[in-house]
Amino acid sequence: MDHDSPTAAGTSAETREERFARGMEVLSRIDGESGRKVVDSLADISPELGNQVVSWAFGEIYQRPDLAPRDRQLVTLGMLTALGGCEPQLDVHINASLNVGLTPEEIVEALLHSAVYCGMPKALNATFVAKKVFGERGLLPVGGA
Amino acid sequence: MDHDSPTAAGTSAETREERFARGMEVLSRIDGESGRKVVDSLADISPELGNQVVSWAFGEIYQRPDLAPRDRQLVTLGMLTALGGCEPQLDVHINASLNVGLTPEEIVEALLHSAVYCGMPKALNATFVAKKVFGERGLLPVGGA
Amino acid sequence: MDHDSPTAAGTSAETREERFARGMEVLSRIDGESGRKVVDSLADISPELGNQVVSWAFGEIYQRPDLAPRDRQLVTLGMLTALGGCEPQLDVHINASLNVGLTPEEIVEALLHSAVYCGMPKALNATFVAKKVFGERGLLPVGGA
Amino acid sequence: MDHDSPTAAGTSAETREERFARGMEVLSRIDGESGRKVVDSLADISPELGNQVVSWAFGEIYQRPDLAPRDRQLVTLGMLTALGGCEPQLDVHINASLNVGLTPEEIVEALLHSAVYCGMPKALNATFVAKKVFGERGLLPVGGA
Amino acid sequence: MDHDSPTAAGTSAETREERFARGMEVLSRIDGESGRKVVDSLADISPELGNQVVSWAFGEIYQRPDLAPRDRQLVTLGMLTALGGCEPQLDVHINASLNVGLTPEEIVEALLHSAVYCGMPKALNATFVAKKVFGERGLLPVGGA
Amino acid sequence: MDHDSPTAAGTSAETREERFARGMEVLSRIDGESGRKVVDSLADISPELGNQVVSWAFGEIYQRPDLAPRDRQLVTLGMLTALGGCEPQLDVHINASLNVGLTPEEIVEALLHSAVYCGMPKALNATFVAKKVFGERGLLPVGGA
Repeated sequence: MDHDSPTAAGTSAETREERFARGMEVLSRIDGESGRKVVDSLADISPELGNQVVSWAFGEIYQRPDLAPRDRQLVTLGMLTALGGCEPQLDVHINASLNVGLTPEEIVEALLHSAVYCGMPKALNATFVAKKVFGERGLLPVGGA
Repeated sequence: MDHDSPTAAGTSAETREERFARGMEVLSRIDGESGRKVVDSLADISPELGNQVVSWAFGEIYQRPDLAPRDRQLVTLGMLTALGGCEPQLDVHINASLNVGLTPEEIVEALLHSAVYCGMPKALNATFVAKKVFGERGLLPVGGA
Repeated sequence: MDHDSPTAAGTSAETREERFARGMEVLSRIDGESGRKVVDSLADISPELGNQVVSWAFGEIYQRPDLAPRDRQLVTLGMLTALGGCEPQLDVHINASLNVGLTPEEIVEALLHSAVYCGMPKALNATFVAKKVFGERGLLPVGGA
Repeated sequence: MDHDSPTAAGTSAETREERFARGMEVLSRIDGESGRKVVDSLADISPELGNQVVSWAFGEIYQRPDLAPRDRQLVTLGMLTALGGCEPQLDVHINASLNVGLTPEEIVEALLHSAVYCGMPKALNATFVAKKVFGERGLLPVGGA
Repeated sequence: MDHDSPTAAGTSAETREERFARGMEVLSRIDGESGRKVVDSLADISPELGNQVVSWAFGEIYQRPDLAPRDRQLVTLGMLTALGGCEPQLDVHINASLNVGLTPEEIVEALLHSAVYCGMPKALNATFVAKKVFGERGLLPVGGA
Repeated sequence: MDHDSPTAAGTSAETREERFARGMEVLSRIDGESGRKVVDSLADISPELGNQVVSWAFGEIYQRPDLAPRDRQLVTLGMLTALGGCEPQLDVHINASLNVGLTPEEIVEALLHSAVYCGMPKALNATFVAKKVFGERGLLPVGGA
């Protein structure tokens, strides 16, 4: 686990602009349009929060090679379901989960699994966000006709 | 996704004893000794809670083929970190994560990733549980000497 | 406390269908129409989550004789208020509380009591769900004219 | 529901001392020694927090006649289990639950019920506090030999 | 720190009406119209909860001289962001923060700071409430043109 | 609000080492020895989490001039109290609060204030951490003899 390898972030001097550009590339690949919209909507209220989402969350953490993108989304689905009240972020990350290769069946099963640890209400709330996202992407019914 | 297949649970008549036996087999394979200890320690206070952990959580949910065991642990690590105050369960499930094939590096990275969504305190609390578990299993320092 | 009595669940062999049927009977009695709607809305996204709500939550746990239905709703109101972000479930369970014999005054007092343990914001959020439900059922103002 | 009745608090002028005295009487009846110890331990750090626990939580809210003491404890058990990280308060309130007439079987069943709404980890954490309290009071095993 | 000083609450006998009047004065000064609306909307469902928000939260706690009003709002912003699911209360208290002298820049920075401790989703949810409130008060973009 | 000023971070190219050094300087000033101990204890399990606490939380966020250090701690006390289960971090940040100029009386009052929004259990848990920290620093009883 050598974080000083050329593929790791920040081993040589970087400007804020370079970190932002790298983060935006990662964010666009994973979250797609919905991630960029969140950042854009911060422009008039907290551009620095937008900058940190891009430069830190995606430019520093997401880009690390130690955990596969699909595995990061599995952890993220678990966290957002457990936190509660994070339906907008679940929307983004259920989309992201599809973008990085999780199947609809795996996502639904992860949310069923969450009932064991978070209880039924949070599992239901997250599953209804999945229903909305899958509907928008023409993926209902899950499992096909 | 055919849950009526022979490998799925409960398609034919089952007794409580049969469900418990199947669940205990799954629990033992994934959580190992620490899972069985939790169930045993419930015997004099709430044997039915022990029964439900085994028969329902493991006998019904965990045994489903729609999500790989290692993927279930990634979701579980995310949930337990986010919930907070679940250090005893994190201990069990960091052990379980190792048992089903996640590497120490992947577990540590999943907990680093959690800082983005849960904040630093919960990421730290979970990481210190990993330090305890890895120490008990001779896995420190992570990344080797 | 003999869980092997004929009225307890699962003492003899049962099929998935039998467990589901028992759970649906309990769910319908307690949650009424709003509970069935939740299960129906899961049909195209996660029928197994719907099955577990019915077969496990209601067919296994709710039907146990060790706690009266009204007492289960008191515990449930406390949990849903404390969890936060569970307004849809509070809607179902404030209805359920009325269905099993809690008075509007007791429900309102339980939510006032919750301010001591959960703080004012969560007590307020839950009370405004009660206002919606009571309004739909013609129960406002609480305490009468 | 007439809160201006002679049994309700605060209908005529009261001093802080009178409110504190009424609250301490209610707290002692419900929480017993463990409640008084919490208040005493606040004396050198935050006597006003101790005053508010006594005068407000018990002197104002708990003494209201609109919800029976045992019903208040059912709501409280649900909240403390759901909040997580409140093991010291669960200890006090599992004792209080016994003090106001809930049976060990009802308490254990309420915590089993909580698994449906809060998930297994929080149900387990609360149940192990019950095991500690019941052990101290000679109530194990629950259900008798 | 002498809570028996003439400016502290409750040193001599007070009626419920006097405590409510003092609380309403403090609430109006800090929360303004949005606070009064919350209390008014409780009139037909839980007037006692409205009474406790006014008489206790504002009449007892907020009026204490030991922490400046702006400092109370900084703590409150932190709590409401961390709790999650408290967007209606964040709306009231971002308004309150402006009312007691916090600048838009300080509020936005407090919410950026919250990302360190609560994670990005809760920081984002709170920041979008600030965007709504600032928009209503003509304070966008933050930092000016 | 000009984040391109010479005192702001990251306007010109920086190495990881430079960011870490700046963060460690800020962390040491605010959290003191207890903050450095947390980072040290991560060395064998997750040095990158230690790096992010230092370089990001302190080197990027804390060092921004838009919110005074004492104001950041007021927000932080509110968040850590509300999150629950963060007693180790409350210990660090009650120390930090004293280090940046909050008085013991202000800290105690902030935690009393938290009872309004988080409920009594979390206010009590946080206050008992303050009692521990103040005891270690010879600051009990609060308010003096």
